[in-house]
Amino acid sequence: MTSLERRPETGRSVTAKVLALLESFTPEAPEMTLSELARRAGVSLPTAHRRVAELLEWGALERGPDGRYRIGLRLWELGSLAPRGLGLREAAMPFLEDLYEFTRENVQLAVREDTEVVFVERISGHRAVPVWTRVGGRFALHATGVGLVLLAHAPVEIQQELLETPLERYSSRTITDPGTLRAKLADIRHSGFAVSDGQVTTDALSVAAPVTDQDGTVIAAVSLVVRADGAQPAMLAPVVQSAARSITRSLYVPRPTPDDSARRIPS
Amino acid sequence: MTSLERRPETGRSVTAKVLALLESFTPEAPEMTLSELARRAGVSLPTAHRRVAELLEWGALERGPDGRYRIGLRLWELGSLAPRGLGLREAAMPFLEDLYEFTRENVQLAVREDTEVVFVERISGHRAVPVWTRVGGRFALHATGVGLVLLAHAPVEIQQELLETPLERYSSRTITDPGTLRAKLADIRHSGFAVSDGQVTTDALSVAAPVTDQDGTVIAAVSLVVRADGAQPAMLAPVVQSAARSITRSLYVPRPTPDDSARRIPS
Repeated sequence: MTSLERRPETGRSVTAKVLALLESFTPEAPEMTLSELARRAGVSLPTAHRRVAELLEWGALERGPDGRYRIGLRLWELGSLAPRGLGLREAAMPFLEDLYEFTRENVQLAVREDTEVVFVERISGHRAVPVWTRVGGRFALHATGVGLVLLAHAPVEIQQELLETPLERYSSRTITDPGTLRAKLADIRHSGFAVSDGQVTTDALSVAAPVTDQDGTVIAAVSLVVRADGAQPAMLAPVVQSAARSITRSLYVPRPTPDDSARRIPS
Repeated sequence: MTSLERRPETGRSVTAKVLALLESFTPEAPEMTLSELARRAGVSLPTAHRRVAELLEWGALERGPDGRYRIGLRLWELGSLAPRGLGLREAAMPFLEDLYEFTRENVQLAVREDTEVVFVERISGHRAVPVWTRVGGRFALHATGVGLVLLAHAPVEIQQELLETPLERYSSRTITDPGTLRAKLADIRHSGFAVSDGQVTTDALSVAAPVTDQDGTVIAAVSLVVRADGAQPAMLAPVVQSAARSITRSLYVPRPTPDDSARRIPS
């Protein structure tokens, strides 16, 4: 047993070890063997063996055709109950479809988690400008359209925290100066939409607008991402804002009660 | 402390209790107080308090504006790594979009979990025939189009298990006779697609086809659900089969390596 494996074994609760096993899975490492899993989670092989058996039985983990472990469908089903995940996405989907048909490019729906964007939905056509966002993936707030909207409406502490750390540069047009970014955020709050023009990759332009809750608090952002070349943000903005407002409204339409929905079943 | 709360406390591992807390959340009960959570999970209030604090800290649970607990975004992000959930969905999405544009009705993508269908994706227009499928939700195998495809290609043990239990009736057209269902499954294997004509609700017809892995094992099913009145399944079948084949092929195109994808970033 290496010191890496032994060290964190003591002092951590069983819950913490189970969560450490689960969070060993990442987009870069979605499948692994038991010993890789134990090493990444910092638990001993016998501990990993015991906990993984319980997670497998419940369905939080599955084994692939090659015997390696991966996140199970049951955990995905459970995650689908997160109101900020699929709940939001279900309400937004018809309006995202409308936006998609407008340009056949990329449509994105995202929320903020601390100082990052989490992408909740993306619709892309075969010939859309390529973006490598992954549903469930994260990105920095200060470069993307949705990120700028979410940052502009974030609590002051979050803005402070982000503006005090060096801002990563993704393209020649990324805003990395805190003063310039501050002015841009004020402008976004004033106009009601954000434009990220080549600030992530120079070939893409995104226009984003906020989705709010009943009290007017910004809870998500929606964007259209198109080819920067020839894009007309002033024409796209009203379309994106209108979709965002429709999503906001649809979130507060009374939902069917369980009794109502029990009467309608899938086909 | 009621006997209900005390009874299951002994003999269950900490992992089992944590999983019991998580699985207390359902589509019908997506948010609850700590005492409701403890009662549903069958753990004592102090145990629930301790475990929930750890789950909150990690982000598996969140608290809503009213203080009630709900599934957190972090669990949704983790669930998005399930290859049979969003992984499959990401690969399928452009082809599902094409199918959607063909009819502007409902497009569904589903996998089998034991003797049930789990819906992985659904695209619906504003004016589509209403279906109450929920992404992440489950349904019986023997009535829906996707369910029939998945059942027709399920291991013999699964078919046996299902055919030996009473088959629930959803509409006057649901097949509930095991012999008739057996013949229908043989027909689906032979023709390569399934038609569910009013077998869930009499107003909807679905046409479904299988998605396979590299060895030809059926791993998912895709369907179009349209109004039963005037629907032409013989015209829809080739379109659905072609989409299913495209999804099958796209699953085995070499993916970009982590290095490649690091070069492309979202906009």
